[in-house]
Amino acid sequence: MSLPRIAVDAMGGDEGVHVMVSGAALARRRHEKFQFLLVGDGNKIEQALDQHPGLRAASEILHCDDVVAGDEKPTQALRRARTTSMGLAIDAVKRGAAGAAVSAGNTGALMAMSKVALRTMPGIDRPALAALMPTLGDNDVIMLDLGANTECSAQNLVQFAIMGAAYARIVTGRERPRVRLLNIGTEDTKGTGDLQDAAQALRAAHGLSLDFEGFVEANTINRGAVDVVVTDGFSGNIALKAIEGSARFVTDLLKDAFRSSLRSKIGFLISRPATELLRHHLDPNNHNGAVFLGLNGVVVKSHGSATAAGVANAVAVSARLLEEDLTQRIMADLQELGTDRLRARVASSTVIDSNPADKPEAEAAQ
Amino acid sequence: MSLPRIAVDAMGGDEGVHVMVSGAALARRRHEKFQFLLVGDGNKIEQALDQHPGLRAASEILHCDDVVAGDEKPTQALRRARTTSMGLAIDAVKRGAAGAAVSAGNTGALMAMSKVALRTMPGIDRPALAALMPTLGDNDVIMLDLGANTECSAQNLVQFAIMGAAYARIVTGRERPRVRLLNIGTEDTKGTGDLQDAAQALRAAHGLSLDFEGFVEANTINRGAVDVVVTDGFSGNIALKAIEGSARFVTDLLKDAFRSSLRSKIGFLISRPATELLRHHLDPNNHNGAVFLGLNGVVVKSHGSATAAGVANAVAVSARLLEEDLTQRIMADLQELGTDRLRARVASSTVIDSNPADKPEAEAAQ
Repeated sequence: MSLPRIAVDAMGGDEGVHVMVSGAALARRRHEKFQFLLVGDGNKIEQALDQHPGLRAASEILHCDDVVAGDEKPTQALRRARTTSMGLAIDAVKRGAAGAAVSAGNTGALMAMSKVALRTMPGIDRPALAALMPTLGDNDVIMLDLGANTECSAQNLVQFAIMGAAYARIVTGRERPRVRLLNIGTEDTKGTGDLQDAAQALRAAHGLSLDFEGFVEANTINRGAVDVVVTDGFSGNIALKAIEGSARFVTDLLKDAFRSSLRSKIGFLISRPATELLRHHLDPNNHNGAVFLGLNGVVVKSHGSATAAGVANAVAVSARLLEEDLTQRIMADLQELGTDRLRARVASSTVIDSNPADKPEAEAAQ
Repeated sequence: MSLPRIAVDAMGGDEGVHVMVSGAALARRRHEKFQFLLVGDGNKIEQALDQHPGLRAASEILHCDDVVAGDEKPTQALRRARTTSMGLAIDAVKRGAAGAAVSAGNTGALMAMSKVALRTMPGIDRPALAALMPTLGDNDVIMLDLGANTECSAQNLVQFAIMGAAYARIVTGRERPRVRLLNIGTEDTKGTGDLQDAAQALRAAHGLSLDFEGFVEANTINRGAVDVVVTDGFSGNIALKAIEGSARFVTDLLKDAFRSSLRSKIGFLISRPATELLRHHLDPNNHNGAVFLGLNGVVVKSHGSATAAGVANAVAVSARLLEEDLTQRIMADLQELGTDRLRARVASSTVIDSNPADKPEAEAAQ
C-alpha cells in the first residue's frame, strides 16, 4: 500500500526552514513509508536537505517565494492562497498531491485557508482545533475546540464530541472514549443553555461510539479520567493557556527554590534525573501538533516556536491520522448516527429542556 | 477607633465548627482590634472556644440550629435566610451588627443570600467574586469574576475593572493598578463583541484610577505584570480551576519523579527546604478568601476544605477590607467617574466599534 504524501510548509514558524526540514527528517525515521512535499523557498530547502539525505530521497520540493506573515490577518492571507507556502501546502491536499499538510505558521490564516480550500465534511458545520495534553493516566487527553470558534452552538459542541471521540479512538485505543463537556461545575444546572442542550443531546444519543459522562471542571482535565474534553473555542483556549501558564509558573518557582540555598542546589544536582523526567513530561514539544478536525483532509498546526523534535511530533501526528484514516472514520461515525437525526435531537432536546414532561414522547418520536 | 465586628458562619465548610473557630482565633492574633460574632450551634461553638480564651473574650455567639447544605440550590437556601447560620451572618452585616461576614459554605447560596440581603451598591449592576492568586512578581494578582455571573455584558466587565482596581490598590499599594481583560489573544480584534466593547470603554475612560493595558492571555496571568484580570464568571472559573489543576498536576508529577529511584529519593530529602518553599507558595490556604465585590457590605468566601490557617487568611482578608473601607472606596471611584458617563461610554463605544470613522466625534461629544 502506498501511503499519501505529507505536505510541509517549510517557511512557517519562528525558527525557519532548517527546523521544519530537520523535524520532517526526524519524523520520517519513525514513519519510513511516507513521502514528503516540502513547500517554500527552493534554495533554502535544498540547503537544509544537505544534512538529511534520507528525507531528500523521499521528498519533492514545491518552490514559492511568498510567505504568510505571523501577524497577518486571515482575510489578507486568504488572498495569497495560491502564492504562499502555507496556501500551496493546503492546496496540495485539496488536489490530492498530499494527504495531509503541516504548518507552523499563523494559526488564523491556516484555519481560514484550510476551511476555504478543503471545506468542512458533510454533517459538520464548523471545524475545530484539537490538541493532546498530558495526564496522570496512561493516555493523553484530547481537548477541542481550542480557538477556531469563539462562540459555539449546542450542535457545534455535539459535532466536536463525535470528532474528538474518533481521534481519541486512535490515540487511546478505547472503542468508546470517555467524553465530557467543559463546564464550571458538574451539576446538570451549571453553565450556559448551549452546554445544557449539548449535554442533553449527547445523553439522549444512542448510536454514538463514545461514552458521554457529563461535565468536567477545568481542574480535573489532567487527572486521566476523561479522554475527550469538548468546549467552545474561547473557553478551550483559556483553559489550554491557563494550564500551560500554570505549569510554567510552578516549574519557574521550583527553579527559584532550588537556587535558594547551597543545600537545595546540591539536592537539585542529585535529584536531576527526577526533574529531567518532569521536564520531559511537560515539554510542549512532546505534545506538539494540533489538528483541525472536520475538514476534508488532514491539517496539522505545529507550534511556532517548536524545536525540530516538536516539528517531528506534529508531522508524526499527521502521519498517524493518515495511517488510521481519521477523516474517513469521522465520516463513518456521522453516517452511522445520521446527521439529520442528530440535528433533530439537538433541536428537540432544546424543547425538552424547557418542558421536561415531553421528554419520553420526544425520544420515542425519533 | 472601634472597628466593626466580623460575623463568622461557624457551620459552613467541610471541616466543621472547630476549624472555623480556630481560624478566627488565629486571625484575631494578627488583627487584635477586631470583635467577632460567631453564628451557629451555640454548644459546639462554646466547646470550640474552650481552646481559644482570647477569641472568647472578643466574641459574641449567635445561636441557630439550621445550616445551609453544601449541595443545596441557592433558591432553596434563600428561603431559610432567617434561620441558617449563613443567612444570619449576612443579616448581621445588613443590620450593622457586623461589618463583614465570612462563610465556608455553599458558594451559590452565599452569593444569592448576600445579593438579596445587602443589595448591589449604586452604579454596580452585578456583584463579582474576586480572588487573589500567586504570581512570580512581588504582589498577588486579583481575578474577577470567578463564577458569580456566567454571562457578562461589556458594562458588567467595566464595573468589574473598577471594583477590582479598588481592591488591588489595597493589596498592591499601587495608586493605578494595571488592569487587563482576559482574552484569547492580545490583538484588538480578538474575542467577543462584549470584550471589545469593554476594552474600548476602558481605553476611552479618563477618570479611572487604574491603567487599562488591554488584553491578557491565560498563560501570562501569573507572570507578575498585571494586577487585575477582568473576565466573565464562566471564563474566570475555567481559568482559575485550570490554573489550580495544572499546579496540582505538576506537583503530583514531581512527587512521582522523586519516588522513581533511590537517587531521586535522596535528592528529594536534601532539597526538601526548596520543595517546602514551593509547597508553601502554592498552598491554596495561603491565598484563601474570595470576596464578593459590589455589595453594600463585605462578604468573604472561605474554601470549603480550608484548614484553620486558611480560614484565618479569609478572616484576615475581611478584616483588611474593613480597615481599608473597600466598599466606600469603590463608591468613591464610581462617583468620581460618574456612573451615567460610564454607561454612556459603554453605549457609545459599541457604536464606535461598528463605525470606526465616528470615533473622534463620539469621544468629543462626551
